[in-house]
Amino acid sequence: MASVSCKTLGIGLAGFGTVGSGVWNILARNGELITDRTHGSVNLEIRKVIVRDLNKFREADAPDEIFDTDLALLIEDPSIDIVVELIGGTQAAFHLVAAALKAGKPVVTGNKALLAERGKELFALSAEHKTPIHFEAAVAGAIPVIKAVQESFIGNRIESLTGIINGTSNYILQRMTEAGLGYPEALGEAKELGYAEADETLDVNGWDAAHKAILLASLSYGTLINYEDVYVRGIEMVTPLDIRFAKELGYVVKLLSLVRQHEDGSIEIRTQPSFISAKHILASVNGVFNAIAVKGDAAGESLFYGRGAGQEPTGSSVVADLVEAARLMEHGGTHRGFLPAEESPKLMPIEDTATPYYVRFKVTDRPGVIAEIATVLAEAGVGISGTHSPSNPEDPDADFVDMVFLLHKTPFGHLKETLAQVEALDSVTERPVVFRLEKL
Amino acid sequence: MASVSCKTLGIGLAGFGTVGSGVWNILARNGELITDRTHGSVNLEIRKVIVRDLNKFREADAPDEIFDTDLALLIEDPSIDIVVELIGGTQAAFHLVAAALKAGKPVVTGNKALLAERGKELFALSAEHKTPIHFEAAVAGAIPVIKAVQESFIGNRIESLTGIINGTSNYILQRMTEAGLGYPEALGEAKELGYAEADETLDVNGWDAAHKAILLASLSYGTLINYEDVYVRGIEMVTPLDIRFAKELGYVVKLLSLVRQHEDGSIEIRTQPSFISAKHILASVNGVFNAIAVKGDAAGESLFYGRGAGQEPTGSSVVADLVEAARLMEHGGTHRGFLPAEESPKLMPIEDTATPYYVRFKVTDRPGVIAEIATVLAEAGVGISGTHSPSNPEDPDADFVDMVFLLHKTPFGHLKETLAQVEALDSVTERPVVFRLEKL
Ligand SMILES: NC(=O)c1ccc[n+]([C@@H]2O[C@H](COP(=O)([O-])OP(=O)(O)OC[C@H]3O[C@@H](n4cnc5c(N)ncnc54)[C@H](OP(=O)(O)O)[C@@H]3O)[C@@H](O)[C@H]2O)c1
Ligand SMILES: NC(=O)c1ccc[n+]([C@@H]2O[C@H](COP(=O)([O-])OP(=O)(O)OC[C@H]3O[C@@H](n4cnc5c(N)ncnc54)[C@H](OP(=O)(O)O)[C@@H]3O)[C@@H](O)[C@H]2O)c1
Repeated sequence: MASVSCKTLGIGLAGFGTVGSGVWNILARNGELITDRTHGSVNLEIRKVIVRDLNKFREADAPDEIFDTDLALLIEDPSIDIVVELIGGTQAAFHLVAAALKAGKPVVTGNKALLAERGKELFALSAEHKTPIHFEAAVAGAIPVIKAVQESFIGNRIESLTGIINGTSNYILQRMTEAGLGYPEALGEAKELGYAEADETLDVNGWDAAHKAILLASLSYGTLINYEDVYVRGIEMVTPLDIRFAKELGYVVKLLSLVRQHEDGSIEIRTQPSFISAKHILASVNGVFNAIAVKGDAAGESLFYGRGAGQEPTGSSVVADLVEAARLMEHGGTHRGFLPAEESPKLMPIEDTATPYYVRFKVTDRPGVIAEIATVLAEAGVGISGTHSPSNPEDPDADFVDMVFLLHKTPFGHLKETLAQVEALDSVTERPVVFRLEKL
Repeated sequence: MASVSCKTLGIGLAGFGTVGSGVWNILARNGELITDRTHGSVNLEIRKVIVRDLNKFREADAPDEIFDTDLALLIEDPSIDIVVELIGGTQAAFHLVAAALKAGKPVVTGNKALLAERGKELFALSAEHKTPIHFEAAVAGAIPVIKAVQESFIGNRIESLTGIINGTSNYILQRMTEAGLGYPEALGEAKELGYAEADETLDVNGWDAAHKAILLASLSYGTLINYEDVYVRGIEMVTPLDIRFAKELGYVVKLLSLVRQHEDGSIEIRTQPSFISAKHILASVNGVFNAIAVKGDAAGESLFYGRGAGQEPTGSSVVADLVEAARLMEHGGTHRGFLPAEESPKLMPIEDTATPYYVRFKVTDRPGVIAEIATVLAEAGVGISGTHSPSNPEDPDADFVDMVFLLHKTPFGHLKETLAQVEALDSVTERPVVFRLEKL
């Protein structure tokens, strides 16, 4: 304690986009504060910034002469002690991170896609070269949930993680709920406001959230989860009608990432738009905020809430990791890194995961249809807890009506088989729409 | 990384009450999991337990032979590497912690009273003997808010901390709100359910929450705040009438701890029952749960929510600190301890802290009274944003009525002077009741 080393550590910043420039701004504004708060032991200096295009206009006030375009410089330059990867993608980023680890330079990254897809190789390199890789910024922006799972809850068996961890989707669903917008209009609005990227694919197809959930699950259970085995659905198919019905039934539609360990040790992990009670605390997570509920066997239920993305919120986590990296370099400590176990985790097949459901059928508007559907469900042993139909149908004379059934807890595989039978009925005119009712 | 040391660290546990036995249970149940999760590097064994009464029945299944009554044994016994202080109080606990630090044995404690009142001496000893003192369990049970402030938000200027950090008070206020109970009945209920201690003084007089806020503020601003300078009010004087009026006005009464740094660097710190909007996320923190909103200049707004007390939730934080202590011992690293700056912080005098207010007057029921009060307020330049009177007064023929004024933002000192003038009016029969309207 109070050991004052005046050595300044050189930071090499790969990427100067949203997050990279945020890191620059925070260090420029609060660098001295950090040195103060660490009793003089942490001095960080960004010595090189690598971008693609040297001619691009940059808001942040960094001197031209530290900019370059060759990522390899960060490895070669001996004045760079720590490499920060904020370029995104999984190709160049992989090569950079791997090279830094091999060169014994600690890495800080915010790249969840990279870690979810190539974490196995990178964590192995980190272990082999005894060089840490820090990634708090990869999950939920400013929210220190990685640290919570890895450090604060280390004495807990993690029973479940439930998160709203994609701000773009959350914003879109919120606008659809509040303003009755359709998906394309809400997406357009999110883009205009800068809440969705030019390419919104990974945000709205669920994979950005899934990548984060995979990382959290991997850390929680000490074993890397293969992203190809994970069930992921996005919000593109969510309709204003289902959002309206959700509201009428006391629910809210959220893109929910869920991780749960079952009694037999198997892990349930999935990301999909789901119905949650409008009264649950997660239902009030709006806009670009993120929240993750963590349940530990000792700690009980906790919730972490904050800005899930953005320049400085994400930069805040990168800077925290830089300070951590600096401390570890200072005293050469081992790092609370992640060394996944050899054996793969037992994932629960999606067919076996059971919840209650909301199912909407489009049916011919004639007597007996409900009875027909109810009969198929009854024969399959799928219990009905309620039904719902539009309180004020837009066109009362239409030939087809929407009919909602709320179903008791059923394994998803059995539900699918049963719904295939319902779909075969003459009176059912479209593929049924299914949402899980998530009891949190 | 992946360095496997098989050394087992000996833990000396002072106190085997609520939290001490929780620590025992967690290590008994999850000790192996911890070793697994730390790749074999952390093995913890409780080797001695110190209590007052050896004959007391203990639920937790710890062997008799490790129990003793002499705290000094934890210092003398060379098989004890880390001392856990969970006896409470500030006398024996101070001597134990000081002795452990002097002997170079890292300390883990959950004792906020000790740190708030004698932290200065203890942190100095910690620095002098290069021996860490860990205290995550001292604030908000299972919620890792100390780590958040000290580590995750290290790159942030902490703009404010707002917390509901005493579960007992929160439970009592909730029951008063939900069930219309009076304070004594709600307290009685809390005691029956084990949510309030036999001696509830520190919980209901605000000091338990204040101790925690003082600790958080001290860590945030790198300087120890003198507890005698802090404004603290408890919930004993909160009446069902004010709770009812709060509800009618769209507010909820919460025991709120607030820390805020102003532009001039001065720190506002106070704990008192306050009105907050019923729609704010903190308003839905119920029962024995705690929540702390932290606002950093980079991270923006975050919220940490969880179990604020109790056997295993608090034990969970103690165990996390034990693992941290073990890691630091393993590689001899400096610790992210707390070395307060020499100079005292500039606290904002309570008279200067300004908010809007709810003020309830008991007045003679005759025409002209409102005008009289309003005139005094107007002459003092205190703006009125609204008035409120009972929607259905219990006794419509009473000589006195309750009259609520909602006042614009005013420094507390000026409000007090102004209210003294109002109180001097003949028509005002009692000392006015004041609550702050906290805009969060
Ligand atoms: N944005 C967020 O809120 C957020 C939150 C959490 C995590 N993240 C993660 O943080 C990373 C960065 O995100 P971002 O939003 O900051 O991205 P961004 O705004 O698109 O910025 C990317 C930066 O990397 C540079 N770059 C890209 N490829 C490069 C290459 N091959 N060689 C050199 N420079 C290259 C770009 O250079 P030019 O400037 O010349 O184009 C740009 O400066 C991603 O992994 C993302 O998932 C982002
Ligand atoms: N309870 C919570 O939820 C909670 C939450 C956060 C922090 N904390 C803090 O944790 C600490 C412990 O709280 P607790 O609720 O566990 O207290 P507790 O239930 O009253 O237990 C206190 C324990 O300490 C022992 N003890 C007290 N004085 C002693 C002395 N002079 N010498 C030897 N043993 C002594 C008692 O022995 P006997 O068993 O023989 O009486 C008992 O085992 C306090 O600082 C408290 O503020 C508690």
